[in-house]
Amino acid sequence: MNYPLLDTLNDPLDLRKLSAADLTQVAAELRQFIINIVATKEGHLGASLGVVELTLALHYVFNTPDDKLIWDVGHQAYGHKILTGRRDLFETNRQYKGLSGFPKREESIYDTFGTGHSSTSISAALGMAIASKIKGEFNRQHIAVIGDASVASGMAFEALNHAGDSDANILVILNDNAIGIDPSVGALKNYLTNVKTGSQGQDNIFEALNFKYFGPVDGHDIDKLLEIFNTLKKIKGPKFLHVITTKGKGLKQAETNQVVYHAPGKFDALTGELSPKNTAVQPPKYQDVFGLTLVELAKKNEKIVGITPAMPTGSSLKYMMQQFPERAFDVGIAEQHAVTLAAGIACVGLMPFCTIYSTFLQRAYDQLIHDVALQKLPVIFCIDRAGLVGEDGATHHGIFDLSYLRCIPNLIIYAPRNEIDLRNILYTAQLGLDLPIAIRYPRGRGNLLKWKLPFSTIEIGKAQNLKEGNRIAILVTGHFTDRALEVAESFTDRISVYYFGFVKPLDRIMLQRIFSKYASIVTLEDGVKAGGFGSSIVQEAAKYNYKGDIRILGIPDQFIEHGATEQLYESVGLDTESLRQEIISLLP
Amino acid sequence: MNYPLLDTLNDPLDLRKLSAADLTQVAAELRQFIINIVATKEGHLGASLGVVELTLALHYVFNTPDDKLIWDVGHQAYGHKILTGRRDLFETNRQYKGLSGFPKREESIYDTFGTGHSSTSISAALGMAIASKIKGEFNRQHIAVIGDASVASGMAFEALNHAGDSDANILVILNDNAIGIDPSVGALKNYLTNVKTGSQGQDNIFEALNFKYFGPVDGHDIDKLLEIFNTLKKIKGPKFLHVITTKGKGLKQAETNQVVYHAPGKFDALTGELSPKNTAVQPPKYQDVFGLTLVELAKKNEKIVGITPAMPTGSSLKYMMQQFPERAFDVGIAEQHAVTLAAGIACVGLMPFCTIYSTFLQRAYDQLIHDVALQKLPVIFCIDRAGLVGEDGATHHGIFDLSYLRCIPNLIIYAPRNEIDLRNILYTAQLGLDLPIAIRYPRGRGNLLKWKLPFSTIEIGKAQNLKEGNRIAILVTGHFTDRALEVAESFTDRISVYYFGFVKPLDRIMLQRIFSKYASIVTLEDGVKAGGFGSSIVQEAAKYNYKGDIRILGIPDQFIEHGATEQLYESVGLDTESLRQEIISLLP
Repeated sequence: MNYPLLDTLNDPLDLRKLSAADLTQVAAELRQFIINIVATKEGHLGASLGVVELTLALHYVFNTPDDKLIWDVGHQAYGHKILTGRRDLFETNRQYKGLSGFPKREESIYDTFGTGHSSTSISAALGMAIASKIKGEFNRQHIAVIGDASVASGMAFEALNHAGDSDANILVILNDNAIGIDPSVGALKNYLTNVKTGSQGQDNIFEALNFKYFGPVDGHDIDKLLEIFNTLKKIKGPKFLHVITTKGKGLKQAETNQVVYHAPGKFDALTGELSPKNTAVQPPKYQDVFGLTLVELAKKNEKIVGITPAMPTGSSLKYMMQQFPERAFDVGIAEQHAVTLAAGIACVGLMPFCTIYSTFLQRAYDQLIHDVALQKLPVIFCIDRAGLVGEDGATHHGIFDLSYLRCIPNLIIYAPRNEIDLRNILYTAQLGLDLPIAIRYPRGRGNLLKWKLPFSTIEIGKAQNLKEGNRIAILVTGHFTDRALEVAESFTDRISVYYFGFVKPLDRIMLQRIFSKYASIVTLEDGVKAGGFGSSIVQEAAKYNYKGDIRILGIPDQFIEHGATEQLYESVGLDTESLRQEIISLLP
Repeated sequence: MNYPLLDTLNDPLDLRKLSAADLTQVAAELRQFIINIVATKEGHLGASLGVVELTLALHYVFNTPDDKLIWDVGHQAYGHKILTGRRDLFETNRQYKGLSGFPKREESIYDTFGTGHSSTSISAALGMAIASKIKGEFNRQHIAVIGDASVASGMAFEALNHAGDSDANILVILNDNAIGIDPSVGALKNYLTNVKTGSQGQDNIFEALNFKYFGPVDGHDIDKLLEIFNTLKKIKGPKFLHVITTKGKGLKQAETNQVVYHAPGKFDALTGELSPKNTAVQPPKYQDVFGLTLVELAKKNEKIVGITPAMPTGSSLKYMMQQFPERAFDVGIAEQHAVTLAAGIACVGLMPFCTIYSTFLQRAYDQLIHDVALQKLPVIFCIDRAGLVGEDGATHHGIFDLSYLRCIPNLIIYAPRNEIDLRNILYTAQLGLDLPIAIRYPRGRGNLLKWKLPFSTIEIGKAQNLKEGNRIAILVTGHFTDRALEVAESFTDRISVYYFGFVKPLDRIMLQRIFSKYASIVTLEDGVKAGGFGSSIVQEAAKYNYKGDIRILGIPDQFIEHGATEQLYESVGLDTESLRQEIISLLP
């Protein structure tokens, strides 16, 4: 593969030495470079292909890194990374100890703000712009590039509302491709479509918020972009540029099938064809256990309603959206709204299943407390991607939820040990609870080929003794239960395993039995140790004046980077062998 | 006092029996009733006075409670409460075991959704509207009444964006009085002002979001309101009505001085004059220690920037806004934006002090994790109203923060024991930290008359032994330290008191000393026991194999109602006498 121009670009300074006419070739090379690497190393494809020209034009016209450039979410920042000194490292993208899949301040001075979650870029850029003004640096530009799905999130609106009322040097670039991970939704999206098709004259909304509005402009026309950026960089104050792009641009399949090619896995770089799927029968993904079971239940229970904030595919709510479009909703990147919407639905007697990734539920924490738990509304939270999630890394691990949830009164918290258990707790929840419940389950596949068994009810608050031993009791929650059993088996009859599906309410009768029987207890969870499941066990132990030893195993008090999930578990001592060693150290 | 019409109204059904012409008199009586009660019993005044006509017209035209009416925030719902069967109870407003100061589902079927925090009403109304549609109840109306400060919050935008794209029977009423608790800010506010003054033709923003737009209409003209509501109730789908009101309407001083008369304390019902202030020299409010100290520091340290989401008065950031308007910002009800704005400011070397009430920081939880802590940006969070806050009740207590914060890596957490300590930690923070810090302090006054002492530096992570005893160690954080000392004194030399200002990082050297010395430990905090400070101590104790007794004292696992703060402490066993009894029960 040949990249005659791209190979000479080690820094945006090199880019700026080229003639504008050369940029078209650089764009072609950059696009091919991204395709070639992602085809074999995997990662996010469509978003970066869509902003190749935008990326080049920005670094060509603006004086990065002195001008501050922030990529919202960051899926689309591959081209930016490659052009800012990380071309040779790019094949380590998303690997353990390799480049992050998102912008990251530690990685480069060109990554002015770390991202991963959406809709933060305008706030961050405005903060920098306000600081520049205070410092007397009046010529610096501060640029947020944000997609049309992300700009519809409340946080982005808050930032626009503030920026428009300021005289800060901020340029908001709306990268409008009508899709986030799934197609964009909402009234604003329809409005933007009208602007693009000319049935609406101009972007009044943004002018109403006091931005100088420019566009829409074709985001694949480099000359147009250069021209408008050269104009914009001379204008002070808040500016808004509406750019139209195509997600997946330059790879036909990626343009046609944008949801799949958001992160397509391995594919043929030349034809774009996806690598053949593993056709062996595999255990299901947890998300599909949720999504398919919900459809099954919704067929019989007319009260069930499904809600996802912008993750119909990722959460598998799409199955219910297809079968019951009147009862399942993608509300866009709007976690706060999603939760209070669910509260409203529960108020009038229906049963909202609100599915949100653990890391994104952090966006709706107040709504969970104030609108749901305080009012004892029986919303069913289906918390996907709980625990370490692998290659998406620090911004996406779902490791705080047990801690931030267990301090909330009135909330039931359940972490199923496997697919069957997830299925049965979904079944149990829709039989009718008088409190909200948070069900957390991991990313990826389970272990069971036969999981679609007849439903059975789970008794709320009951723990289970899965294996009887005489020395040490392992108390485990969630999908680590199998791991605990595997470790316990290797010690023959010395280790007991107690499965606490319910982190709240705790099974205090079982706990009392455990406290009176064992001199050593180990707790195990796929979440942070601070304030989590293990923490709740030592609190109970203190209450019962338990005098044995308790060791809490979980994620230590640090942010965990990206890499294969099992690699990450190993790095924090949660792989099977490390767990075995912990047990050995406790045995007399 | 005479209320000839109001006295006959025990239910909106009674109201609907009156002629429309009678409503003007009811309005006058209702307004007087509110003034008379709030004048002596205290509470929120201005907001409810502003919506007297609106309240009457809504209950007169719509078929509440079958039609669903939701008051955003709920400060303005006094008239609604009085008209819906709670007239005689209204003098117990905000008192322990009395009526809540906010709408509350348990209190009345007319309170369809509990509120307290802002900007939830549209989501909740939409949830109900969607549920009504699913249930085949096509004629029900769902009405959210939301102020112009609240509608600018991101969550409200998310709900508008969803509602506009639906065919739900929802009516959003914008109660536009240009003020929240403090005057409204932001580009949207300016836009709405232009609409009102006619320099902008119509509310394009809301039409762009696909609402049928009506107004602006004078919210004190009952006939106009009746007319427009009678029109609106026949129209299906999402509707938006822009109503102009005056906060404090009908009481001259309240109209003139809207910030003070939001919640004026006692005043003369006839003249509106405020009751004479206590002129005795009193200890300062914690918020003023923050606000005044920040000004003092900002005079010398040019890097200091202040940020408040809509609480310049309540947080006392107003002092810095007055003295350094270029360096202190009210960003509106936009906690998410406030925190990421602070992150952006910290990125370029300035020192953002971001002050947010504990209960509202729940709104920016993800931003704190993802934008601040993960990037180790040294934002200084000044968390006001931490602990029980008294009469505002369950929606406003700041009791979860220690739990939801201590699970976040890279975050320093400090709870000052008094005003001097708060002052010194603010001083210490601006000397330059390499991590973010969360400083939490309570509502109300401290205990020190002489608090403006010369600054001294606080060593990060150090606990202090304040009193030496030989039996039991009390480990206490925050303003309960004085309470712990008082209790300890009464046991002569048997009780030690250790003050842990730093909940994180914990002083592990001090802890080791404590674990090796005492057979009993008591922890004490003004926050929930689940996952909080005490929980962190038992986790450490488990790590050190401590075999003594530990008793965790704090808020139990339940939502706490409203009432005088000391009354609430008593109700959960945190008053001095209850604490004494706890100690006695532990003594041999």
